[in-house]
Amino acid sequence: MPQKGTKKAWAGRFAETANPLMEAFTSSLAFDKRLALYDIQGSIAHCRMLVKQKILTRGEGEKIVKGLEGVRRELEQQRFAFLPSDEDIHMAVERRLTEKIGSLGGKLHTARSRNDQVVLDVRLYLREEITNIVQLIVALQKQFARLAKRHGDVVMPGYTHLQRAQPVLLAHHFLAYYEMLSRDRERMQQCHARVNVLPLGAGALAGTTLPIDRHHVAKLLNFPSVSENSLDTVADRDFLIEFLSASAILSMHLSRLAEELVLWSSSEFGFIELPDAFATGSSMMPQKKNPDIPELVRGKTGRVYGHLMALLTILKGLPLSYNRDLQEDKEPLFDTVDTVKGVLAILDAMLPHIVFREDRLSEAALGGFTLATDVADYLTEKGMPFRKAHEVVGAVVRWCVAHQKRLEQLSVEEWRQFSSVFDHDLLPRLTLESAVDRRRSYGGTARVNVQRRLRSIGV
Amino acid sequence: MPQKGTKKAWAGRFAETANPLMEAFTSSLAFDKRLALYDIQGSIAHCRMLVKQKILTRGEGEKIVKGLEGVRRELEQQRFAFLPSDEDIHMAVERRLTEKIGSLGGKLHTARSRNDQVVLDVRLYLREEITNIVQLIVALQKQFARLAKRHGDVVMPGYTHLQRAQPVLLAHHFLAYYEMLSRDRERMQQCHARVNVLPLGAGALAGTTLPIDRHHVAKLLNFPSVSENSLDTVADRDFLIEFLSASAILSMHLSRLAEELVLWSSSEFGFIELPDAFATGSSMMPQKKNPDIPELVRGKTGRVYGHLMALLTILKGLPLSYNRDLQEDKEPLFDTVDTVKGVLAILDAMLPHIVFREDRLSEAALGGFTLATDVADYLTEKGMPFRKAHEVVGAVVRWCVAHQKRLEQLSVEEWRQFSSVFDHDLLPRLTLESAVDRRRSYGGTARVNVQRRLRSIGV
Amino acid sequence: MPQKGTKKAWAGRFAETANPLMEAFTSSLAFDKRLALYDIQGSIAHCRMLVKQKILTRGEGEKIVKGLEGVRRELEQQRFAFLPSDEDIHMAVERRLTEKIGSLGGKLHTARSRNDQVVLDVRLYLREEITNIVQLIVALQKQFARLAKRHGDVVMPGYTHLQRAQPVLLAHHFLAYYEMLSRDRERMQQCHARVNVLPLGAGALAGTTLPIDRHHVAKLLNFPSVSENSLDTVADRDFLIEFLSASAILSMHLSRLAEELVLWSSSEFGFIELPDAFATGSSMMPQKKNPDIPELVRGKTGRVYGHLMALLTILKGLPLSYNRDLQEDKEPLFDTVDTVKGVLAILDAMLPHIVFREDRLSEAALGGFTLATDVADYLTEKGMPFRKAHEVVGAVVRWCVAHQKRLEQLSVEEWRQFSSVFDHDLLPRLTLESAVDRRRSYGGTARVNVQRRLRSIGV
Amino acid sequence: MPQKGTKKAWAGRFAETANPLMEAFTSSLAFDKRLALYDIQGSIAHCRMLVKQKILTRGEGEKIVKGLEGVRRELEQQRFAFLPSDEDIHMAVERRLTEKIGSLGGKLHTARSRNDQVVLDVRLYLREEITNIVQLIVALQKQFARLAKRHGDVVMPGYTHLQRAQPVLLAHHFLAYYEMLSRDRERMQQCHARVNVLPLGAGALAGTTLPIDRHHVAKLLNFPSVSENSLDTVADRDFLIEFLSASAILSMHLSRLAEELVLWSSSEFGFIELPDAFATGSSMMPQKKNPDIPELVRGKTGRVYGHLMALLTILKGLPLSYNRDLQEDKEPLFDTVDTVKGVLAILDAMLPHIVFREDRLSEAALGGFTLATDVADYLTEKGMPFRKAHEVVGAVVRWCVAHQKRLEQLSVEEWRQFSSVFDHDLLPRLTLESAVDRRRSYGGTARVNVQRRLRSIGV
Repeated sequence: MPQKGTKKAWAGRFAETANPLMEAFTSSLAFDKRLALYDIQGSIAHCRMLVKQKILTRGEGEKIVKGLEGVRRELEQQRFAFLPSDEDIHMAVERRLTEKIGSLGGKLHTARSRNDQVVLDVRLYLREEITNIVQLIVALQKQFARLAKRHGDVVMPGYTHLQRAQPVLLAHHFLAYYEMLSRDRERMQQCHARVNVLPLGAGALAGTTLPIDRHHVAKLLNFPSVSENSLDTVADRDFLIEFLSASAILSMHLSRLAEELVLWSSSEFGFIELPDAFATGSSMMPQKKNPDIPELVRGKTGRVYGHLMALLTILKGLPLSYNRDLQEDKEPLFDTVDTVKGVLAILDAMLPHIVFREDRLSEAALGGFTLATDVADYLTEKGMPFRKAHEVVGAVVRWCVAHQKRLEQLSVEEWRQFSSVFDHDLLPRLTLESAVDRRRSYGGTARVNVQRRLRSIGV
Repeated sequence: MPQKGTKKAWAGRFAETANPLMEAFTSSLAFDKRLALYDIQGSIAHCRMLVKQKILTRGEGEKIVKGLEGVRRELEQQRFAFLPSDEDIHMAVERRLTEKIGSLGGKLHTARSRNDQVVLDVRLYLREEITNIVQLIVALQKQFARLAKRHGDVVMPGYTHLQRAQPVLLAHHFLAYYEMLSRDRERMQQCHARVNVLPLGAGALAGTTLPIDRHHVAKLLNFPSVSENSLDTVADRDFLIEFLSASAILSMHLSRLAEELVLWSSSEFGFIELPDAFATGSSMMPQKKNPDIPELVRGKTGRVYGHLMALLTILKGLPLSYNRDLQEDKEPLFDTVDTVKGVLAILDAMLPHIVFREDRLSEAALGGFTLATDVADYLTEKGMPFRKAHEVVGAVVRWCVAHQKRLEQLSVEEWRQFSSVFDHDLLPRLTLESAVDRRRSYGGTARVNVQRRLRSIGV
Repeated sequence: MPQKGTKKAWAGRFAETANPLMEAFTSSLAFDKRLALYDIQGSIAHCRMLVKQKILTRGEGEKIVKGLEGVRRELEQQRFAFLPSDEDIHMAVERRLTEKIGSLGGKLHTARSRNDQVVLDVRLYLREEITNIVQLIVALQKQFARLAKRHGDVVMPGYTHLQRAQPVLLAHHFLAYYEMLSRDRERMQQCHARVNVLPLGAGALAGTTLPIDRHHVAKLLNFPSVSENSLDTVADRDFLIEFLSASAILSMHLSRLAEELVLWSSSEFGFIELPDAFATGSSMMPQKKNPDIPELVRGKTGRVYGHLMALLTILKGLPLSYNRDLQEDKEPLFDTVDTVKGVLAILDAMLPHIVFREDRLSEAALGGFTLATDVADYLTEKGMPFRKAHEVVGAVVRWCVAHQKRLEQLSVEEWRQFSSVFDHDLLPRLTLESAVDRRRSYGGTARVNVQRRLRSIGV
Repeated sequence: MPQKGTKKAWAGRFAETANPLMEAFTSSLAFDKRLALYDIQGSIAHCRMLVKQKILTRGEGEKIVKGLEGVRRELEQQRFAFLPSDEDIHMAVERRLTEKIGSLGGKLHTARSRNDQVVLDVRLYLREEITNIVQLIVALQKQFARLAKRHGDVVMPGYTHLQRAQPVLLAHHFLAYYEMLSRDRERMQQCHARVNVLPLGAGALAGTTLPIDRHHVAKLLNFPSVSENSLDTVADRDFLIEFLSASAILSMHLSRLAEELVLWSSSEFGFIELPDAFATGSSMMPQKKNPDIPELVRGKTGRVYGHLMALLTILKGLPLSYNRDLQEDKEPLFDTVDTVKGVLAILDAMLPHIVFREDRLSEAALGGFTLATDVADYLTEKGMPFRKAHEVVGAVVRWCVAHQKRLEQLSVEEWRQFSSVFDHDLLPRLTLESAVDRRRSYGGTARVNVQRRLRSIGV
């Protein structure tokens, strides 16, 4: 059985060498190599602190840092040769360092463990990526604001239950996404603060006996704070789950936008035309122009939800502190980061090229008796209880459906057959402009509101 | 087919009455009745604003408010008779109001829709429950702090991979949970701020044409801010999902505690004795004393995760704005609130009655060669590269396993067979107290650290 | 602390009585009372077997069975008074039995444990409910088959990417759901076989020392087989998860139907008119007629997915055998059964009353250049490589878009400007009927296929 | 904006070339290249059928098949050069084919679409992988059976609530996993039957106008049946979700085994010794030997659950038929296949090398009053109602706990102080062998049962 395996960092205690199947099963190198540069960044800071604390001599420190910088260059220039026997990125870097500077390389691991080292790498990685994601969210918000400004007067049907309900400004619809994204951004930023905490120095689980200075490392790596409890530091991954939930909510929002783009580009809605450069065709049906991008955006929601569920499952019921199960945190994290960034970027690129067919939008806005509420409001203003007014207008609508008329087409006389409260002042109300602009309640769709909001967000 | 149904708020437009199957399928009364008092609270504020804005007369307003207060008393005294024909809590309240004050009751719904009304109710409910949950978290944190203080000197084995790793203070272990709960509390509080926004006035989706004053309602109901976009207000439920994720993370943390309590109360660990009053027996096996509470705490994690997944699924790919799918948000929410509160409360009640068997804990802390890292650190301090020191100590451990010895039992001579660096100053280090207290790095398990942390959190 | 609690089945070993908070937290009565009749059914069979095996005397057996039948009547007539001190349904029934027949009631629990008893109850319950669900699936399949028959000639646009792709028969579309439901039914039936296994006799975990006859109990309760391993029997819940996944897949299918009904009842599609009796209105917008049923069907998918995730989470990483976490299996199960049955029943009731607007369907079927593939196929038949044909037709479509023409409107001369292969025999092909009927490949949409399939399923 | 893109299969209809961002976002080549050989296998069968049906000439067919075989060789020898402009594996293969045999390559796509082609590839892939997984399950079952045979007489404590409950055979415990895996195998096999259906010929969604013979293709590719409905064929992925659920349940089972291996290899349990070749150490703590493999097995449950949730989410609420969201089905599928196979293989390799410490197991089996039920059974046999017997033994246990005695250590006189029913025939019962062997009820832990079961499964 036990074939020839490779010598491990922990070989001293073992009588047999590792089984190759086991090595392949437990290795994380295939995915954690993405953390390589963060690993080196953290190691350099750690080494500098060890020198400051006189745990290493200045000379040792200089050699190690120089060695690490050499390894970094190899990585950056893609000259770094990973070996199958490198268990993970930490061992790969240290192995290479030792090849370069000899057994002194072994001193770098003084006063730390892979348990705190890997959390450091992940936190360095994630805080940077959250910053990137926040920037992409802000960029997408700006697209919505710009679209709102550009299409400031276009009216569309507002929907509830996918039934036309009341006319709204297309700009108001865009700004709804702006607001959702504002909350997504906030969640990401608050998560960032919980990611941005130095874990290094927690050791394997209990801290270290060596006189390290964690606050110095924090300063070198620009962490505003230092973790308070070593067990907690190596055992928990709540900051990752929080990031995955914030990403899931963001994806949910974008899946709704995607759904709308798919609907709107259908023949039936016909509200938008996707740019050729952002659509695809069919290998079989020559006429097709498909909204693949929004479809994929919608579909990718699944993978983000799945990754959230994966990490929640992994952590459920694990005793403290570090358990190897936690190695499974990385792939869901990396794929979520890639997915979220990819989705935000492609929407940002595509949105400005979508053609909005304003005629179809306003035609639809008039359909479906969208002014019925305005008629009910009219009756209410004249003193009729709202429930009664609702009933009257319901009857008018039924009559119109049966007679294939639109509300705007009825004469005052026809109106008065349903209630004597109706009068000539009703008719001017029955336009899209009036319906939109009269909804001046704070947050309502009136042009004046939308313009105010655009000003307040600086567009 | 269409049997006799009941008259609906929207009957005007319909030729047929509702099918009873449909009524049963769509009714939300069975669960949204929990929102009754919040519904009335919101309606009273809405009514007062309508009076202030002269949309209702003072007299109308007084009658409506008085009527609502009557309905509230009936609810509080459980005299309120719900009817099967009440579609939801909003219609039930309005129906009863109208029975009490006549058709004037119908005026209450002026300038609002059930779409904004229900979000108001949910936000009023949830902001209160988050406050309750935060208090329960704080109470549980205090239990951990008190336990840490009470058992200040007890040493236990710290684990990684469920293998004994290094000795730690039991108090340090408790404080790890304190820190996790701090972040849970923070997440809940930040979520609270996003819940605490007035939605009323968004109308069905587009705002209202009536001259309402949303900021006045916000003031009456103590909302620090007012939602910015009417479509977003009725369409989104991200604040619920955020609450469910914060709850899922909290539950994950508590599932880990629960797992440890289950392990620790096993015969094999024997670290704790659960109080009889908080344990159960077996109907078949007379000797059993089972840790049912931690098991259920661990198991209930599943339902919270499930509810999160439910709501994420519900919202995925829904076009704006309100869709009836959103009605499905309430049961997962309510059950999560109940579950999280129940779990926090029972742990708070049980924790102080757990008996910690200090002898077993410290005996275990010495087992498993937990001082091996201290020996390696000793060698490192004497100048040996860490990797080499690790190897030497690994060999000592292997020898001890083969000869059934503990590290503390070796003589200096025996040590020196493995490396000449070992000397007499090694032996005093090989005690639990030394191992714990030497881990003075910030966040490490040394008593001085734990005491400092307890002071900083005010215990 | 420990206030006055109630005496438990396991009181002998305990010095303190149970804490009331603990009792409330661990009690399952609120939900497992649903199993009451199954519990009694199982107990009667168990008792009869004990008599047959002479573990009880005939006289004891008769008294116990008579007592249980009395309890059953109380339950059926809703005269059974549950007490807060009844921990669960098993204890409630036994408590009441003992009140009726005295301490002899205590003998019923001979040779069994609540661990095997509860799995028996759940299996009795679930096998019945799966049978009910299968019947509901079959009924819904019949609705689709009937609809397919009724609307046998109606053509609609088939979609890919929600873009009109090729004309298909509405009947073909219905039969797609028929096929999905066939697989759902199969999955349910195969799950049923794994549910339908007798667990009783596994005892608490290890079997029993008493000379019971499990095969006799199986015969009395109509179980075709008996579980093979006592530990597995009380520890696993895979049959529940399997049921939840089969339900999740079924719900997924129905969510797709629901989505289509929502789309089709929009003004934009206008393909169907929902019956008034199965639609709802708006409390604010008098004109609205909303597809609440399909929306709720779609939304309820979330709760089924959530319950699946809950149970997967609960079981993850639990050591053998029974753990109290498993008590959390029931609410997700019950709610899934209710949800799935409710959804199937309401769709079954609603589907036959939907009005299909055949004019809108066939008009749409012609839109969007749905015959373009037929033109490409025409070219292919004439010997042009498919990829080339595709390109030619793509150019025709682009030209038509620019000139606002439909394919059917082009003359042979116009066609020939794009390729000389086009000839007069093209024109008769450019009808919906031709397009549909020429798709005669097995499983294709041709009328002859659809009729054959309807015959093969007996409609 | 639209930079230089590449020419697509659907370029005819488009005025602009594809945006490179869009190409990168929508390309599936990075992952669907795994399907390459299945794609060619399917294409060859498709081509042969086209020849048989005279849609292609014999000469054309021969050239195409030869070309495809050339492409296959390039793939097998890893000489195939994928281009960034290859959208997916289908286009990559066809592009290469056309390079080899000229524009004739374009004829291969006659009478099919990528929509049915991709489902074919996935079904070919998955049916093979399910077969592999079933073999791995069977191999693991054999390991458990062999272990059960090898350790036939070893007694261990059976647990409920992780409390020692009753003695069981270690072999019985192994066979519990055997049974779970039997059901997993069944589920996989039944899923296989639903995967093993030919989709090709469904075309893009509606079938094809060309005179293809799907049953001939099915025969060539060894599919026992042909899909019934073209829309269903390209739109659904229920067979994938079913496979993911079967995998999730299997993973759940293995996570429980993994949890037990982690517990059992702890110092506290000490039931097993993991082979050095399948354990890892710590880079910091020289004494550690960690159960990384079971930990990772347990953790990987999360990713399988997550993938299931991902695919459920993706399909929720999608209208028929094909939507691009479905492209997201592949990565969860592939990763689940890899994970499940990896986990099964490593357990199969590791299990036979685990050392079971029989002394620790039987010592533990006697601890925790595991014979208490036997005493209660003894009293029951003497005619005492079970509930009363339970109470008596509970009191004995309490007395023993207080006096630090084991049940086996009490004299008859001491027993009689609790009940006069006790007599000398009690004492011989109080051994592990007696306790185990007396549990002879079908499925119970008695040696005779376990041996019978081993014979029935052929070990």
